[in-house]
Amino acid sequence: MSETVSTTPEQYVIGIDYGTLSGRAVVVRVSDGEELAEAVLDYPHAVMDSVLAETGETLPPEWALQVPSDYVDVLKTAVPQAVARAGIDPAQVIGIGTDFTACTMVPTLADGTPLNELPEFAGRPHAYVKLWKHHAAQPHADRINELAAARNESWLPRYGGLISSEWEFAKGLQLLEEDREIYDRMEHWVEAADWIVWQLTGNYVRNACTAGYKGILQDGEYPSREFLGALNPDFADFAETKVAHEIGQLGDAAGTLSAQAAAWTGLREGIAVAVGNVDAHVTAPAARAVHPGQMVAIMGTSTCHVMNSDRLVEVPGMCGVVDGGIVSGLYGYEAGQSGVGDIFAWYVKNQVPASYVTDAAAAGLSVHQHLTELVKDQPVGAHGLLALDWNNGNRSVLVDTELSGLLLGQTLATRPEEIYRALLESTAFGTRMIVETFNDSGVPVTEFIAAGGLIKNAFLMQSYSDILRLPISVIGSEQGPALGSAMHAAVAAGAYRDIREASDAMGRLQADAYQPDEARADAYDALYAEYATLHDYFGRGANDVMKRLKDRRREALETAQAETAQTTTAEEAGA
Amino acid sequence: MSETVSTTPEQYVIGIDYGTLSGRAVVVRVSDGEELAEAVLDYPHAVMDSVLAETGETLPPEWALQVPSDYVDVLKTAVPQAVARAGIDPAQVIGIGTDFTACTMVPTLADGTPLNELPEFAGRPHAYVKLWKHHAAQPHADRINELAAARNESWLPRYGGLISSEWEFAKGLQLLEEDREIYDRMEHWVEAADWIVWQLTGNYVRNACTAGYKGILQDGEYPSREFLGALNPDFADFAETKVAHEIGQLGDAAGTLSAQAAAWTGLREGIAVAVGNVDAHVTAPAARAVHPGQMVAIMGTSTCHVMNSDRLVEVPGMCGVVDGGIVSGLYGYEAGQSGVGDIFAWYVKNQVPASYVTDAAAAGLSVHQHLTELVKDQPVGAHGLLALDWNNGNRSVLVDTELSGLLLGQTLATRPEEIYRALLESTAFGTRMIVETFNDSGVPVTEFIAAGGLIKNAFLMQSYSDILRLPISVIGSEQGPALGSAMHAAVAAGAYRDIREASDAMGRLQADAYQPDEARADAYDALYAEYATLHDYFGRGANDVMKRLKDRRREALETAQAETAQTTTAEEAGA
Repeated sequence: MSETVSTTPEQYVIGIDYGTLSGRAVVVRVSDGEELAEAVLDYPHAVMDSVLAETGETLPPEWALQVPSDYVDVLKTAVPQAVARAGIDPAQVIGIGTDFTACTMVPTLADGTPLNELPEFAGRPHAYVKLWKHHAAQPHADRINELAAARNESWLPRYGGLISSEWEFAKGLQLLEEDREIYDRMEHWVEAADWIVWQLTGNYVRNACTAGYKGILQDGEYPSREFLGALNPDFADFAETKVAHEIGQLGDAAGTLSAQAAAWTGLREGIAVAVGNVDAHVTAPAARAVHPGQMVAIMGTSTCHVMNSDRLVEVPGMCGVVDGGIVSGLYGYEAGQSGVGDIFAWYVKNQVPASYVTDAAAAGLSVHQHLTELVKDQPVGAHGLLALDWNNGNRSVLVDTELSGLLLGQTLATRPEEIYRALLESTAFGTRMIVETFNDSGVPVTEFIAAGGLIKNAFLMQSYSDILRLPISVIGSEQGPALGSAMHAAVAAGAYRDIREASDAMGRLQADAYQPDEARADAYDALYAEYATLHDYFGRGANDVMKRLKDRRREALETAQAETAQTTTAEEAGA
Repeated sequence: MSETVSTTPEQYVIGIDYGTLSGRAVVVRVSDGEELAEAVLDYPHAVMDSVLAETGETLPPEWALQVPSDYVDVLKTAVPQAVARAGIDPAQVIGIGTDFTACTMVPTLADGTPLNELPEFAGRPHAYVKLWKHHAAQPHADRINELAAARNESWLPRYGGLISSEWEFAKGLQLLEEDREIYDRMEHWVEAADWIVWQLTGNYVRNACTAGYKGILQDGEYPSREFLGALNPDFADFAETKVAHEIGQLGDAAGTLSAQAAAWTGLREGIAVAVGNVDAHVTAPAARAVHPGQMVAIMGTSTCHVMNSDRLVEVPGMCGVVDGGIVSGLYGYEAGQSGVGDIFAWYVKNQVPASYVTDAAAAGLSVHQHLTELVKDQPVGAHGLLALDWNNGNRSVLVDTELSGLLLGQTLATRPEEIYRALLESTAFGTRMIVETFNDSGVPVTEFIAAGGLIKNAFLMQSYSDILRLPISVIGSEQGPALGSAMHAAVAAGAYRDIREASDAMGRLQADAYQPDEARADAYDALYAEYATLHDYFGRGANDVMKRLKDRRREALETAQAETAQTTTAEEAGA
């Protein structure tokens, strides 16, 4: 604990975590990070990925939209509820911090009004928020990547060589080319992380994290006019007219709570509001990982890895490196695994027989827990299986969404729980591949810290420790992002000098909760060598069978659709 | 239909099919192969693979024994029952034919008495029948193969380069080295296929089929004294003293029904009894496949492929080629896939969720049928998956029990029925690999004929046709082996000149029941190319990961067992 704490026990901060489907407010004590109470609001419009609520219009595949007023509703409901549940005087709250999904984009007027709130645009899909998982800009991302590679753009290696379809420029180019009127009317293309802070303060401040990771801001510059103009002449001024704005460093105050936002939340006007932030990145200080070499893995449906370093290097296949991207003053690195908990969930839903479900229920366990119990004492390698964790593609280090899953070693004696374990292990091997790539690139991982929903599975955590040959520390909070946001609020309010100090005082970590077992680690080394061989064989071009199978799948489905359409047309013509 | 039929409608023959768990007698009309009635006896002792019934003694792993008197019980019960059900006069029966599992071995005295029937040996496991799937002689087979390869034995290529642990010499060597007293007392090492004919006729005649495929009889010679003596000096005279005997050609009469056997069966003494035969091989004439180039696939838990040719060549990875091994006068080739229906059954038992079982029951379908219905109309390749059919190892053409299964292409959207289909397809790709190997070796497959339990699945059959680009004919009998045995009885009785003639008159075939679809065949060509690449990568030494995983599995389990034993001993010492 820090000796420099200048707060009294009576001070609190609010952290608000804006997730994909809900917003969660948590009341946190400034002195020690104790979480007093929380409240959640499910967004009234959730995610619009098939139909636009306003008109009932069907959306094309890969679209995912949201409604900005849902975010404000979280301020109006979850915040006062959490404060009431905490039983504190709202006057004791000295600051608010937020984190958001990213890259989630709001098109606005100069004053921040979302375009979907203009009556004339309420029926236009492009006027709405494009959620992080809106993937319809893939053709635009492909063009950006192709051109950037051809022109050797200096920023490209900072993103492992590929810009995502999820990010600001791909989504912006799609908007330009598909709804010109909305594009022209749009005065700011705003990260939702910053838009919500704008609502709280009345100030628009662009946070350094998303500006770097999602907005291609590197060394103070965006992609050039020439580059953007070569994509589309009308896109040449996109960065300067729609995107560029004053940058705020993480942990700084973006401003103070406005009278209007004070009325929404029931908090005092004028308290500090922290610069916007991102769920994964804000978790690092919550887990006391603010120093170089501490890798935080936020393990849920997918896994996001964030790590600080004092060195700027190019790590192959990372998602990005941004100056001050996690903690001001250090380079923040991000990497990821696109399928982790999602793969386990897919398996449990699709590949586990009835008797397991029955037995799990009888034992009062989830199917996940039951499968784990059945197989956790089996010696390493006794299942004879090996899997690749690519059912949702590979983010790091191959950056290839066209890869797919693999399971090898099945016999007629293979049991469902053994395959489940092989899948758990495959995600640990995937993490080891990322860790080794960082190590080999000159930014070594010296400590591994786990956060997120999967830390509940002790066997999974122990396996990660054995496979990584690293002690694993585990975050001590179930609401890592909200806690991290609250800590940024405390810093913004001046309760701590910086996020490091806040992290020391308020962060919650079970240090070295898992230690690698030497014998198991040795056995896993051999399995990892097999994993690495298959990883390279299928992932680095020796055999592109996975890509060809996905191509074939698309062709087969398109042909079938075309035939169905033809048949239908012919039938209608005949009728 | 043949014009040369010299029978009257009132003549019948009995075919008896000795399977792994039961014997089945079928009454068949000589003139046209009509099956009048059948009866089955489950062997009273079934398969002894964990405990010896006589003593309760635990058997070691991989053992599988039977009791010879169970086979005689089939003669005493199933035969008279079938005759009674057929409603015919037993005097109308002119012959009996049999087929048996192989290589299933009986140790006997000079008069055919099985050693287990001697009171002093009743408690000795090695005195019993070693069933085909007794796999405990693998170390002995390994030594045979190693020495034969080192000495370049001329017979080795006739078996695709490997002798099986299931066969006569491996099982015989195990007997010698593990129970010398039984070995010394044994006067004949008899195929059960021949032992049952011995019981029927009182004559011991060794059939050409098992003598060749399982007994290493090639060009009239067994492995040499020198070779056998190098394995073990006391094994040098094994072939000449225990194995060698008069050979009977398939379709010939081994003798006539003895008075004793007439009393058992209720049939007339003196009727013809055909030379012993094997289930898979006897099915070929039942499906009218007696000409060169007609490949018969008996598709069940595993698949056995048999084909005649007028040429003797070495086909890589075949199980064996034997002169007169299927039909006297032609070279009989055998190949196999060690897991087919077994893989589908494993999948349905271990990898299909509850809702599918419920839905299948509601629709009045088996789970297999339900999965097939769900996926059968999907275009080729639309599942994006590819599998290797090696969950039970690979028999042909790789001859490697250490290989294992593989599934590739899974995404978070992959459905259980799609994986089921990929498994069905993988077995068809495995068959195509065998067919192409025969084609490339100079004994082309000109017609493909399917028999066995899996022919019920029309989608599976159509997929085989598309993947092989061959019309598929289907046997018209559900009791192919018994029908084939009955046809051999008819020939032995002189009702037909030879098995070809009998096959024309009595064989039952739905010719060209399935025709390849050009578009699907084209699409499957591309998938087969992917299969072939993975087949060679994992099967021919480029990446022996499957073998290493199996090694590791064994080591892990042995280590764990040793540790458990140690703990137990320590606990006992402490107690």
